[in-house]
Amino acid sequence: MQVKDVPGSSGRTVVTIDPNETIADVVDLLKEYSIGAIVVSQDGKTIDGIISERDVVRHLAREHEGTLRVKVEDLMTATVSTCQLDDNLEATMGVMTAGRFRHMPIVDSGNELCGLISLGDLVTARLQALEAALDEGTAAGD
Amino acid sequence: MQVKDVPGSSGRTVVTIDPNETIADVVDLLKEYSIGAIVVSQDGKTIDGIISERDVVRHLAREHEGTLRVKVEDLMTATVSTCQLDDNLEATMGVMTAGRFRHMPIVDSGNELCGLISLGDLVTARLQALEAALDEGTAAGD
Repeated sequence: MQVKDVPGSSGRTVVTIDPNETIADVVDLLKEYSIGAIVVSQDGKTIDGIISERDVVRHLAREHEGTLRVKVEDLMTATVSTCQLDDNLEATMGVMTAGRFRHMPIVDSGNELCGLISLGDLVTARLQALEAALDEGTAAGD
Repeated sequence: MQVKDVPGSSGRTVVTIDPNETIADVVDLLKEYSIGAIVVSQDGKTIDGIISERDVVRHLAREHEGTLRVKVEDLMTATVSTCQLDDNLEATMGVMTAGRFRHMPIVDSGNELCGLISLGDLVTARLQALEAALDEGTAAGD
């Protein structure tokens, strides 16, 4: 299986936020789109970072007040692992579980943002494939 | 497979918080224990509710200021689905994905809190079992 076999891995608009916006804007977008992380990008194509609800909560624990006024670029994770649509699904899951992150942007061959997958999406797809393979009584599926 | 087959489903101390504490205490505990949700309980045995990092971020989006001073009991989810150690793993995963929650307390036969599992824990265990079954070339595993 490849990343593109995950439902929703392509064809959906990726929510992005400018690095100069604030955490107040982040929490509004997370709620509006019912998502757990947002790709940080100035032009919607080049990835500057990623910011998650966990980042927000961890900062709240550290500083308590003022978190909502912090700029996105000061709290985001700037070093972002990405994948491509034809990457192997298991390898991608391995990268996410090893790095302990739940979201990974998908980029095209020109390294431009084209999607975002969550660990939950990946795992659900992999589970369905494994169960289908078991039903067929084969050891195939990849 | 049963819930008790999930690594970490038993034998770990469950972090709890009193319903009269505040969201400031919640975010501190979430950070201290590197967890995503906390069981709300006055005595550490009876479950009053559950509160997650998502609950905190959603409230921040709604009210922005003052979230850290909100009492746990005013933001927690009071109706909590629970499971037992001998519950079927797939059925438990189904309840969690259908209800869209990531954490579920485990209770003993006396309905007292004895553990907490995350969807990630469950899915990892199920994936390992399915892959082992495929390796054996059988359709068994449950």
